Amino acid sequence: MAEHSITVESTLQTLLEAKKYSTLKDILVTMNGADVAAIFEETQETKIPLLFRLLPKELAAETFVEMNPDLQELLIKGFSDNELREVVDELYVDDAVDLVEEMPANVVKRILAQADPQMRREINEILRYPENSAGSIMTTEYISLRPNMTVDEAFARIRRTAVDKETIYTCYVTENRKLVGVCTMKDLLLVKDNETRIQDMMDRNVISVHTSDDREEIALLLSKYNFLALPVLDSDDRMVGIVTFDDAMDVIEEEATEDIEKMAAILPSDKEYLRSNAVDLYKKRIPWLLLLMISATFTGIIITKFENALAAQVILTSFIPMLMDTGGNSGSQASVTVIRALSLGELEFKDLASVVWKEIQTAVLCGVTLATACFLKIILVDRMLLGNTDVTVLVAFVVCAAMALTILVAKVIGCTLPMVANRLGFDPAVMSSPFITTIVDALSLLVYFTLATALLF
Amino acid sequence: MAEHSITVESTLQTLLEAKKYSTLKDILVTMNGADVAAIFEETQETKIPLLFRLLPKELAAETFVEMNPDLQELLIKGFSDNELREVVDELYVDDAVDLVEEMPANVVKRILAQADPQMRREINEILRYPENSAGSIMTTEYISLRPNMTVDEAFARIRRTAVDKETIYTCYVTENRKLVGVCTMKDLLLVKDNETRIQDMMDRNVISVHTSDDREEIALLLSKYNFLALPVLDSDDRMVGIVTFDDAMDVIEEEATEDIEKMAAILPSDKEYLRSNAVDLYKKRIPWLLLLMISATFTGIIITKFENALAAQVILTSFIPMLMDTGGNSGSQASVTVIRALSLGELEFKDLASVVWKEIQTAVLCGVTLATACFLKIILVDRMLLGNTDVTVLVAFVVCAAMALTILVAKVIGCTLPMVANRLGFDPAVMSSPFITTIVDALSLLVYFTLATALLF
Repeated sequence: MAEHSITVESTLQTLLEAKKYSTLKDILVTMNGADVAAIFEETQETKIPLLFRLLPKELAAETFVEMNPDLQELLIKGFSDNELREVVDELYVDDAVDLVEEMPANVVKRILAQADPQMRREINEILRYPENSAGSIMTTEYISLRPNMTVDEAFARIRRTAVDKETIYTCYVTENRKLVGVCTMKDLLLVKDNETRIQDMMDRNVISVHTSDDREEIALLLSKYNFLALPVLDSDDRMVGIVTFDDAMDVIEEEATEDIEKMAAILPSDKEYLRSNAVDLYKKRIPWLLLLMISATFTGIIITKFENALAAQVILTSFIPMLMDTGGNSGSQASVTVIRALSLGELEFKDLASVVWKEIQTAVLCGVTLATACFLKIILVDRMLLGNTDVTVLVAFVVCAAMALTILVAKVIGCTLPMVANRLGFDPAVMSSPFITTIVDALSLLVYFTLATALLF
Repeated sequence: MAEHSITVESTLQTLLEAKKYSTLKDILVTMNGADVAAIFEETQETKIPLLFRLLPKELAAETFVEMNPDLQELLIKGFSDNELREVVDELYVDDAVDLVEEMPANVVKRILAQADPQMRREINEILRYPENSAGSIMTTEYISLRPNMTVDEAFARIRRTAVDKETIYTCYVTENRKLVGVCTMKDLLLVKDNETRIQDMMDRNVISVHTSDDREEIALLLSKYNFLALPVLDSDDRMVGIVTFDDAMDVIEEEATEDIEKMAAILPSDKEYLRSNAVDLYKKRIPWLLLLMISATFTGIIITKFENALAAQVILTSFIPMLMDTGGNSGSQASVTVIRALSLGELEFKDLASVVWKEIQTAVLCGVTLATACFLKIILVDRMLLGNTDVTVLVAFVVCAAMALTILVAKVIGCTLPMVANRLGFDPAVMSSPFITTIVDALSLLVYFTLATALLF
């Protein structure tokens, strides 16, 4: 598919240079908004407004929605008021809200001025909801039916209002703005008698969410039930909008990216990598690096305390990296598994005891395997192959015992911290690898040096 | 929402103990398959077959699909052939395939024996596709129309065949099994004249995928275009099935989990955390732990080489953990960001130069900030506050210079390795934190000791 679009792309660029506008238009209208947007991103900035004006109204709006904010701003700045109104008219409300959220204030003012009063009111309404809430990602354009309509009347209403609606395949039955039932297009099509009243065929067990609910929960709910859309109610239980599956998909992707970033000690951002400059990246990365660097002071202090032991047996130093890395890796395996299970809703705080017990068992298995392997490696490689006579059997034993204990500590801390953080209302993803590594580092050195001083001196 | 389901759950358990089966049934029929399945998972095993028999046919199938494989197996073993046939009859083909893939051979034999010949053929067909391919997640049940049908005829056909189809909202127009166009239910409903022929209203620019395409690419494609389904063609370009948005959502979740696991040096698995026992976890975690432990040997060798320097200035040892951790964290920030961008299709190999340049700039910014902070910390805390006179200004300088260089190396390696791996056809997620940490550890120690020997002795 990638190859295909590259070929079309180069053809289009050639046509553009040759100013073959009508041929260009003929090709563009066969394409999808997302693809046209991708082509625009590869096109010289000065040519974009010209290309954009070739698109028919609906495709223009579709393309506009898929473009990155920088290009959108560029285009809007070049639009006449009339052109801007045409694009805004074609946008779904939730897309218009996304646009308004991304644009600088002066551009927002122009957009709102060109939106019709109804849309302006709806945009403003949605903008009031907190970030990451169901309200902030919903659209107010859904099909609503009345309970006493017949199926024929319902179809007439759907045909009349469908053009503006983001989905017509799930219809919501409301009475005094309260949601009383749902009815899918499939139900409507398969009903035997078109005089059937909606109230006699609708499903009254409606799963709904509230405007203030977290968008990640909503996305998981949509994915769990395989719904096309979920109705959103306000605090008085009146229906105000729907969240559709395509938004849920974006949320699932974005939340996974956020979790991954947090696990790698990066502050989350919405910006794509290629669109972030070095300063953006720096700002996202430096806070945790600083904090983790400073907290490594404790490890330094521990080493200083055991300075004399180290000076007497320098060989002990050479095992520090292996001990620290193995501890860190063991801990992050446990924490990352638990964090992901928490964010997919597979795990709750009440499972803590069984999680800890499972990690202890796993730690014992891993600890015994690794300690054995490590012992063999030290004796066979370090002592016999490399001929390092400082590496006695007792040294090997100290290293391996410290390693097994470190793994145990790392796994238990790794699984406990995220669950406790989650319970206390913090984001468990922050309790991840780098943070846990720092704690495990300090503990593993303590175990190591304590064992070493006890057994070797 | 969670509170709500817990209450219903306890009510149901009470009713079950009191043997109030008809009340139980009345409550269960109001619920969704996914919720009933969740309740079953909390119910005593011996009671499950009894509860399951209370469900009406369609809900029974829906519930069955949502249960975990252990429960499914338990139920199937208790089913009579008749009961099994009823459940299998109600399954969509893709769900039946999932079931067959999870069950042990003797259970599979019974399932296939009870499926009708048509379904059996389709299950076997899908089972032939490689794991993680579009073919393996598609369903063969879609609505197909002929180009010369009128809209009225299309509606008649849809009504006749809709019951079995996973989605009826996107219809595929085929001629001699070749896909020639698509037509949404919305298009059909909004057409002015019901005598219009499908060929005159269908969209001929169809985006399709092939059975062998990777399921992750398909999912990203569905998410990019916001489609309900994508048509799947075989190698002769004949239409064989569709992949629907709900499967795509599951794929996006699963692939993110897999990436996260690989980034934390865990072999990926499909099993939920709470359903994995310690041996499962051990098997997923020990290979990388072993490999990474062995590879830490190099770090050990480097330290041994500089033994004399360390024996003379033991204070140098106390900065090793901080240097290694900062290097590891810097590297994993870069690698994780790049890996995620690669798997979301935001980045390609041709961007390598611009990625490396961006990471170099970021590394310089981070390096200068951290080195300055570290210098101040060493002088103010270690030397003045803790009164450690071994910590001279020159030692502080060596540590900070080594840190800045380590960050630069870590960021460059962190962004390059995953892109090269991806280019060579390997999974970039494997080139992640723990792997890169090991390399960066070795390099940072080399830089540190080289600087130290040059400047301090």
